[in-house]
Amino acid sequence: MARLTSAGVRSPEVGDVNARDQLLLAASELMTERGVADVSLSDIAKKSGLSSALVKYYFGSKAGLMMALLRMVLDPAMKQLDHLAHIPQPADTKLRIHISGMVNVYFQYPYVNRVMHQLLVDEPQTYGPLIAQEISKPVANAQKSILDEGYAAGIFRKVDPLLFYFEIVGACDQLFFGRYQLEHVFGLTTLDKQLKDRFVDHLCGTILDGIYLRK
Amino acid sequence: MARLTSAGVRSPEVGDVNARDQLLLAASELMTERGVADVSLSDIAKKSGLSSALVKYYFGSKAGLMMALLRMVLDPAMKQLDHLAHIPQPADTKLRIHISGMVNVYFQYPYVNRVMHQLLVDEPQTYGPLIAQEISKPVANAQKSILDEGYAAGIFRKVDPLLFYFEIVGACDQLFFGRYQLEHVFGLTTLDKQLKDRFVDHLCGTILDGIYLRK
Repeated sequence: MARLTSAGVRSPEVGDVNARDQLLLAASELMTERGVADVSLSDIAKKSGLSSALVKYYFGSKAGLMMALLRMVLDPAMKQLDHLAHIPQPADTKLRIHISGMVNVYFQYPYVNRVMHQLLVDEPQTYGPLIAQEISKPVANAQKSILDEGYAAGIFRKVDPLLFYFEIVGACDQLFFGRYQLEHVFGLTTLDKQLKDRFVDHLCGTILDGIYLRK
Repeated sequence: MARLTSAGVRSPEVGDVNARDQLLLAASELMTERGVADVSLSDIAKKSGLSSALVKYYFGSKAGLMMALLRMVLDPAMKQLDHLAHIPQPADTKLRIHISGMVNVYFQYPYVNRVMHQLLVDEPQTYGPLIAQEISKPVANAQKSILDEGYAAGIFRKVDPLLFYFEIVGACDQLFFGRYQLEHVFGLTTLDKQLKDRFVDHLCGTILDGIYLRK
């Protein structure tokens, strides 16, 4: 399982930035190691070697830290998604790039969907609008644009974008969330880049064949 | 969101069975209401009107209660899956029945995959083999049989059953796990039978088209 390493964090320029990123890194590593979407402030403090009071100082609360972590780890994927809207490629190529991008995020940060869910359960008033605006809506809108483009070009049949959104988010995510099942059911203890790449190929094949217009 | 009601629990014949089922029902209702896969013993006791000591008496531990709950709510689906192996229907019809059955389980009990995951994280030695043997392997094996049948009959192309397993478990589950996103991103506050049925139709269409052999 790939993990966020210090190389994956923006390099600190001042001590303040460093401590903030160390806390995010510690939370990310703990959740990846344990396969959970919730870790205690004291565990984050212990792992980072910093005081848990710094979480309050930098993020206001543990939920604030989790939202900051989502922003950090999803930032490259959100930029790629925005870029995807403007490249001159057919819709099926764009969808392949999008699926591959989503799987890569879940491969590196398998807790992402669980953390979003937990924030929405715990503090829906605060994080519902933020997560929708910054993460989920841009993803859903990008998918809808790709589906519309493909339909207009006669490549895809008409597909409900809402149902498609949940189908492919779940399809891309489950292997990484379910890696304990991978071990106990299929006897695979490592989820390496090779298996991840096979999964991307499999998903691109079945998802695209699932929506191509048959003439 | 559909919920387990007292009508969904086997009717008690003696006082002992009744109290046991009341605890399972309380846990199921709390997890469905809250959108989580973990509830405290004191909350289960309060909801059921029974003493939390009864959890230890009937189930040994909270994990034991969760495993018993999985067995209870998945029992009809596991029986259907076993039946599916023996009916004289083509592979694509069997796969439609299986997909519809999975979605119906997640519609009624949206916590199922999270509870399995939590048991595997918390007590892998105990629940890894049990969950694999009683739940995940029968599902994975049934899917593999259907894929093999469809391939042999020239209906399906060759598909990796491991990758297919994670793809469709995730695809079928995400709408119900992600119902807070449904609300905040798509503005839908109810996940009713009509939407569930549309989701089944959508999934059967895309998943089957995704693996049909093109001649």
